Amino acid sequence: MTRIPFESMYEVVTDAFVRAGMNQSDAETCARVHTESSCDGVYSHGLNRVARFVDYLQRGWVDAKAKPAPVKKLGVIEIYDGGYGPGILNAFFATDRAMAIAAENGVGIVTLRNTTHWMRGGTYGWRAADKGFVAISWTNTESCMPSWGGKNPRLGNNPFVMAVPRKKGHIVLDMAMSQYSYGKLQVTRLKGEKLPYPGGFDKDGNLTSEPGPIEQSMRILPTGYWKGSAFAILLDTLAAVLSEGLPTNRIDQIGRGSCTGCSQVFIVFDPRQLGGEDFTDQVADSVADYVNGSVPAEDGREVRYPGQSTLRIRADQRANGIIVDDGVWAEVLKLAGREG
Amino acid sequence: MTRIPFESMYEVVTDAFVRAGMNQSDAETCARVHTESSCDGVYSHGLNRVARFVDYLQRGWVDAKAKPAPVKKLGVIEIYDGGYGPGILNAFFATDRAMAIAAENGVGIVTLRNTTHWMRGGTYGWRAADKGFVAISWTNTESCMPSWGGKNPRLGNNPFVMAVPRKKGHIVLDMAMSQYSYGKLQVTRLKGEKLPYPGGFDKDGNLTSEPGPIEQSMRILPTGYWKGSAFAILLDTLAAVLSEGLPTNRIDQIGRGSCTGCSQVFIVFDPRQLGGEDFTDQVADSVADYVNGSVPAEDGREVRYPGQSTLRIRADQRANGIIVDDGVWAEVLKLAGREG
Repeated sequence: MTRIPFESMYEVVTDAFVRAGMNQSDAETCARVHTESSCDGVYSHGLNRVARFVDYLQRGWVDAKAKPAPVKKLGVIEIYDGGYGPGILNAFFATDRAMAIAAENGVGIVTLRNTTHWMRGGTYGWRAADKGFVAISWTNTESCMPSWGGKNPRLGNNPFVMAVPRKKGHIVLDMAMSQYSYGKLQVTRLKGEKLPYPGGFDKDGNLTSEPGPIEQSMRILPTGYWKGSAFAILLDTLAAVLSEGLPTNRIDQIGRGSCTGCSQVFIVFDPRQLGGEDFTDQVADSVADYVNGSVPAEDGREVRYPGQSTLRIRADQRANGIIVDDGVWAEVLKLAGREG
Repeated sequence: MTRIPFESMYEVVTDAFVRAGMNQSDAETCARVHTESSCDGVYSHGLNRVARFVDYLQRGWVDAKAKPAPVKKLGVIEIYDGGYGPGILNAFFATDRAMAIAAENGVGIVTLRNTTHWMRGGTYGWRAADKGFVAISWTNTESCMPSWGGKNPRLGNNPFVMAVPRKKGHIVLDMAMSQYSYGKLQVTRLKGEKLPYPGGFDKDGNLTSEPGPIEQSMRILPTGYWKGSAFAILLDTLAAVLSEGLPTNRIDQIGRGSCTGCSQVFIVFDPRQLGGEDFTDQVADSVADYVNGSVPAEDGREVRYPGQSTLRIRADQRANGIIVDDGVWAEVLKLAGREG
C-alpha cells in the first residue's frame, strides 16, 4: 500500500491519456476526474478504470475527438448526441449546459445520447452542488443483472445521482441499481471474505453472500430485490425516451460493454431562485442534523448522511496522499510511459 | 372474502366522504381514486384507508375545503401551498397543472407544500401516462424507519413514482423507500407467515424475516439497506427545497402522522414533443419485451415489467368485482350510513 500525492497522480494519468490520443486539455480534465474519484475513495471509477479507458480509446470505441452535437432544443430542454466521445467530457458539457439553462430559467434539462462511460456518477452531482445547484442525473448501461424473477442479464445497473448544495457539505446520493458492484464482489472474493448481506443467487438459485458463485452465475441482486429491478427498468426507459437515444437492450446489441452508446439525463435546479440559498441550507442542515442525531445501532458508531464520509476520505487523502494498489499504480505508470 | 362491483364501492366510498364533510364532486373524485387503487390490488391506500381519511377530515387535520394556493411561478416551475387540503385533490391539481405546462413547454414542474396524504403514489403516474406524458413524482412523509446505522425512526418511506406511456400498457414504478410497508408486516403476521426476505431488525439488532419483532422495534429495513436510506434522505431534502416546504423532521414536529404537512414534486415531460409517440412506444416496447424475454428463475413463471401485473389485476376485478376484506368493507359501509 502506497500513498501517491494528488498532483502526482493527476500528472501521471494525464500523460497516460495524452499517450492514448487525447489532447492535453481534455486529458487534464479527464485525469482530474479520475484522480478526484480515487481521492474520494471511489477507485472503481478512478485509478482502476484508467487502463480500460485507454484501451477503449485505442480501439476507437471512445472517440477522443468527438464533441457533443445539438439534436433538439425545446424550451429548457436540450438534447445532444455524444458521438461516442469521452463520457466525462460529454457529461461535464451536459451538466454545465444544464446549470447555464437553470441559471436563466430556474431549471435546465440536458440529455445525451450515444455517449460513453461517465465514470463516477457522483462527479456530476458534486460539480452542480459546488456551484449551488440541485441536481438529478442518471445514465443507463449495458445489462449486468437479471430482472427480478429472471436469471439472465437484462438490466443495467443504471447509476442514479441526486445532489443538494449545503455550506457544511453537500448531500449527495450516487447509487447503482445492483446491491453490489462486480468490483465489490471481486475485491471481497480476493480477500477471502463474504459480503455483509446476500448479493445474488448462485447457479442453483440460492441467495448467497459468497461473491464467487454470484460472479459465475451473473445473477447479481438488484438493490432491494424487485424494487431495484423495477427502478432500473424505469431509469433505462426514461433515459432513452428523453434523449432520443438507446435503451439497454440496444446498448447490448452494440456489445462493447462499459456503457458504450448509453443515454443520460441531467436535471438541474437553481434553488437560489426558489426558496433561496439560506432556506436551502436550513433545510439541508435540518435533514443532515436529524440523521446525525440518530441513536446509533452500534455504540460509538456515527449515523451519517450521504456524502458525509466522502468529505472525510477526501480531506485525508488530499493531505496525506491517495492510497493506491501497487499493481494498479504500476500499470498506470506504464501507460504514462513512466516505467523504470 | 366478498367481491364488490366497482361502481358499488365507488358509490359507498363517495357517501362516506360526503358524510365526513366533503362536497359531492370532491368526494366522488377521492372515492374514485380509493376504488381504483383497490381495484388494482393496492388496498393499503384504497379501501383500507377510507376510515383513516374520514377520521382526519373529522379531526380537521385534513381541510375538506382547502384549495391549492399559488406561492411562486418561475418559468416552467410552479409552487403551490396545499393548505392541508385533501392530498388526492391537491396531487391531481399538481399533476394536471404539470401536464398543462408540459404541453406548452415540453416539461412542467409543479411542487406542493403543506399538503396531506396523496394515498397511492402510482395514481399520479398512471394519470399522466394515460394522457401520454412521462412523469416523475415523489412525496416525503413523517419518519417511519431509521437511517442506515441508526435504530430510531428518522426517515420517511417517501414514495417515488416514474411512469412512461405505452399503448400496450404503461410502465409504472411506485416504490416506497422501506423494503416492506408496516401494512405488509401486519398482514404477514396475521397470517402467521414470514416475510420472503428479511424486513428489518429485532430489538437486539438481528436481521429478521419475522414481522412481529420488526413492528415492535420499528427498525424496518430501508430497501437495499444503506441505499434506500440514502435515497430517502435525498428525496426528502429535494421535496422540501423544491416546494419551499417541510422536510420529514418538521413533519414529525407536527406529529399528526399520515403525511400531514408533506412536500411533493411532480415533474412531467411531453414525449410527443421529443422523439414522438411512435418512438416512445418503440423504446417502451423494446424494454418491456426484453424483460419479458428473460429466462425465468422458476420454470413457468413470467418475468414482468413494472405495471404489468397491475393491468391484469385491474381487468379481473373490473370484470368480476373487487375482492374485499369483510371487516374493512363493513366498516366503510357504516361510515357511508349503509349499515343494516
